[in-house]
Amino acid sequence: MTAYSFAAGPARLPDAVLERARDALFVRGVDGAATLERPFTGDAFRATLAHARERLAALLGLPPGYRMLFLAGGAMHQFSLLPMNLLGTARCAAYADSGYWSQRAIDEARRYTKVVIAARYTGATPLAAPTAGRWHLPPGCAYCHITPNETVDGLAYPELPHTGAVPLVADATSCFLATPLDITRFGLIYASAQKNLGVAGLTVLVVRDELLGRVAPHVPTAFSYRIQAQQDSTYNTPPTTAIHVAAMVFDWIADNGGLTTLAAANRRKAERIYRVIDGSGGVYTAPVVPAHRSVTNIRFHLADTALTERFIAEAEAHGLHHLRGHPRIGGLRASLYNAMPEAGANALAEFMSDFARRYG
Amino acid sequence: MTAYSFAAGPARLPDAVLERARDALFVRGVDGAATLERPFTGDAFRATLAHARERLAALLGLPPGYRMLFLAGGAMHQFSLLPMNLLGTARCAAYADSGYWSQRAIDEARRYTKVVIAARYTGATPLAAPTAGRWHLPPGCAYCHITPNETVDGLAYPELPHTGAVPLVADATSCFLATPLDITRFGLIYASAQKNLGVAGLTVLVVRDELLGRVAPHVPTAFSYRIQAQQDSTYNTPPTTAIHVAAMVFDWIADNGGLTTLAAANRRKAERIYRVIDGSGGVYTAPVVPAHRSVTNIRFHLADTALTERFIAEAEAHGLHHLRGHPRIGGLRASLYNAMPEAGANALAEFMSDFARRYG
Repeated sequence: MTAYSFAAGPARLPDAVLERARDALFVRGVDGAATLERPFTGDAFRATLAHARERLAALLGLPPGYRMLFLAGGAMHQFSLLPMNLLGTARCAAYADSGYWSQRAIDEARRYTKVVIAARYTGATPLAAPTAGRWHLPPGCAYCHITPNETVDGLAYPELPHTGAVPLVADATSCFLATPLDITRFGLIYASAQKNLGVAGLTVLVVRDELLGRVAPHVPTAFSYRIQAQQDSTYNTPPTTAIHVAAMVFDWIADNGGLTTLAAANRRKAERIYRVIDGSGGVYTAPVVPAHRSVTNIRFHLADTALTERFIAEAEAHGLHHLRGHPRIGGLRASLYNAMPEAGANALAEFMSDFARRYG
Repeated sequence: MTAYSFAAGPARLPDAVLERARDALFVRGVDGAATLERPFTGDAFRATLAHARERLAALLGLPPGYRMLFLAGGAMHQFSLLPMNLLGTARCAAYADSGYWSQRAIDEARRYTKVVIAARYTGATPLAAPTAGRWHLPPGCAYCHITPNETVDGLAYPELPHTGAVPLVADATSCFLATPLDITRFGLIYASAQKNLGVAGLTVLVVRDELLGRVAPHVPTAFSYRIQAQQDSTYNTPPTTAIHVAAMVFDWIADNGGLTTLAAANRRKAERIYRVIDGSGGVYTAPVVPAHRSVTNIRFHLADTALTERFIAEAEAHGLHHLRGHPRIGGLRASLYNAMPEAGANALAEFMSDFARRYG
């Protein structure tokens, strides 16, 4: 029986990356060092970083005027570092409230500036993301922050808002590289690595050059977007292991047809699961309006919540793991990141159909 | 021919850890996930973190009243985060200037507070660390920061200063776990992982409880020592891969006799190299007074600097790599962290003796 982890993150790596990393990272070369033992100032790591950068630029179709940063830590660090770096002389920042993670970002931003809530999700079932129109963007906001895919709530924006002159900033942690993106829509987009980019300890930022001049005096220098941009993300020792793994993930995406091919596979995987939910005669429910459902994080509940523990136990017996919903929300969640093979989604769909037949 | 890397960091891992990590991190378990694919909120990672904590406490003989934090990023992040977390209502902090890295720490601290230079190293050859007595510690300094081993300069404090009521804070990045430490002497001691604790992306802090109450309002929450102490270093996703490797390193140290045994081996390794330097009739010189020489980072020069490139090329041909000194200082440097086997130091000593005979 093949076993699959549906964890929300740290999440599954592509099989090919897992195998390649094992051989590439831990085997010593002629210089007596394995990849993760090499100095970050040496040719070998510089080549890896340059390769990661080129590959990512190609995958994104990166337009001129943008930089890629590879920073230590996770997206929650950026919740603080974003306002520190981007506020400049502005007296407020706009945030859209679309669920758990955007609310965490808002709470942290409030420690640094006045936060204007630009738009809100419905908040009650069925959940719906903030939609176009009806956005409140007072002049003078430094940026407008959105969370295009809410990992906990299972909610995704069906389309990006138009924020005019206010730069759009996105925490794309759980959807980065899951589908092609029009980077020109963003002032800054960031994603921590442990979903679609590899292992925990790294956050990738793509930022428009012109935003790099706003850095506040109290930003830790090693977290200054401007300094790290000037120094090719090597002002200090970067998280080299995580960058090596990310470079391998970028290779894997390119080798497998790029973002368009991945996006099609991601849609098929999600549709398999949502079809079972919607066809279960109410045994399962997904609390999000269909057009706003996340393709990546499938959130669902059993109508009979007393069955939840049985579902989890039986799923595990079928090799389907880490399906428990976020503790704040409960229920069930299947995360189908890029690295989840279609066979994994199919195995889950079959188990869910069978479970619904037996307990429906 | 066995090859050895003498890089200053990211540096060599213990052979046993390299092998164990390869098998343990990248092989999927019954839950369909390899170690580095598992959620940080799950039982498996929690057990690893608890194990790392227990092992480290045992190695250090951690006294009551101290906490261990496992934070994302490197020591340079702490150069900013330390004053943010520890200044409290104080209007200054004391720093000892002992070379390259303490000066970097001072430059960053000056962005946050008035820095009083508590003591200075000699600055000119032969280098000598700030010695006991003659320390300038005005009342009201939040802490006194030292860099007990200067990785670039090859300089180490022969003894810790007595700072009275002012908590002693140490960047022990390049000497942590190289020798037993009396933790009670420190208010806080920190070390990034890529020297003696594993791979880049993690910094370990040991901090006295009573210092956790000083956190400034603009500290990023995920970098608040207090919050991370309250939440067992899992307020946000920690650098799980680096923590797993660190736990394996702690095991390896315990399995090999602990810090006392390691310290003895480290002394033997360093003595082998310094003996060649001092016995070379002036072919090599170490620019540090003998009692202040680093056991970990052996800095030396060829009297005939025109031979430096030849030394590096011939050393590489003998399997001895990454011996170039820091770019700011030049010359040569051999880093002999815990993971460098005595055979590696012996191989370097033999090559150096032979080179001196041939070119002396």
